[in-house]
Amino acid sequence: MSTRIEKISLAEKFRLFSAHWEPKIVAELNDFYVKLVRFEGDFVWHSHESEDELFFVFEGEMLMKLREREIAVGPGEMIVIPRGVEHKPVAPREVLAMLFEKKTTVNTGDADSDLKLTELEWI
Amino acid sequence: MSTRIEKISLAEKFRLFSAHWEPKIVAELNDFYVKLVRFEGDFVWHSHESEDELFFVFEGEMLMKLREREIAVGPGEMIVIPRGVEHKPVAPREVLAMLFEKKTTVNTGDADSDLKLTELEWI
Repeated sequence: MSTRIEKISLAEKFRLFSAHWEPKIVAELNDFYVKLVRFEGDFVWHSHESEDELFFVFEGEMLMKLREREIAVGPGEMIVIPRGVEHKPVAPREVLAMLFEKKTTVNTGDADSDLKLTELEWI
Repeated sequence: MSTRIEKISLAEKFRLFSAHWEPKIVAELNDFYVKLVRFEGDFVWHSHESEDELFFVFEGEMLMKLREREIAVGPGEMIVIPRGVEHKPVAPREVLAMLFEKKTTVNTGDADSDLKLTELEWI
């Protein structure tokens, strides 16, 4: 990261990567990271024991599956998943999203999954 | 606020208020709030001693004045002001922005100003 204060363009940052399900850090605020992620297809069911999580959709339409229902979230819309709530993000077509998460948040939460990432890249 | 998990549409929420410089809370994540704010004109110079602050522009163009320079931030762009850095948001025309701030953050920071808000409304 740079210590110089600069604006961050979501569109420009999204052009820097193409991999799915690999969030990139673009900013930090106190104990939170702002991340950008591209994804398509199904993630795994999981929950985060003590961290709330925000998904803001920049492009595409995400389906946030909860155990009882699912919620479609499109561009300019966001959804907060409170700690402890099982959820599964699904994208029939590619979605570009911004995440607000505590620095301690692991992408797969309590799930045992190959999708788990232990180190995130700054872009 | 509702405890039911629902998506949040920025456009819909912005239609619920018109006042300037009065951020409304739309979500909370752990020790952070997500707020929406409309503003036009000049805010006051201020800094936050221990809180970083994120401005994401939804509509319009903001000028973020720093002591040495100013940075134009437009739709789909954001800027993080680290704790301790003096700043002054300015909007020649109305700007609609999303803020990501610690719950303890006071809008006017260390400044003595009539613009200070002690209580924020949820929408």
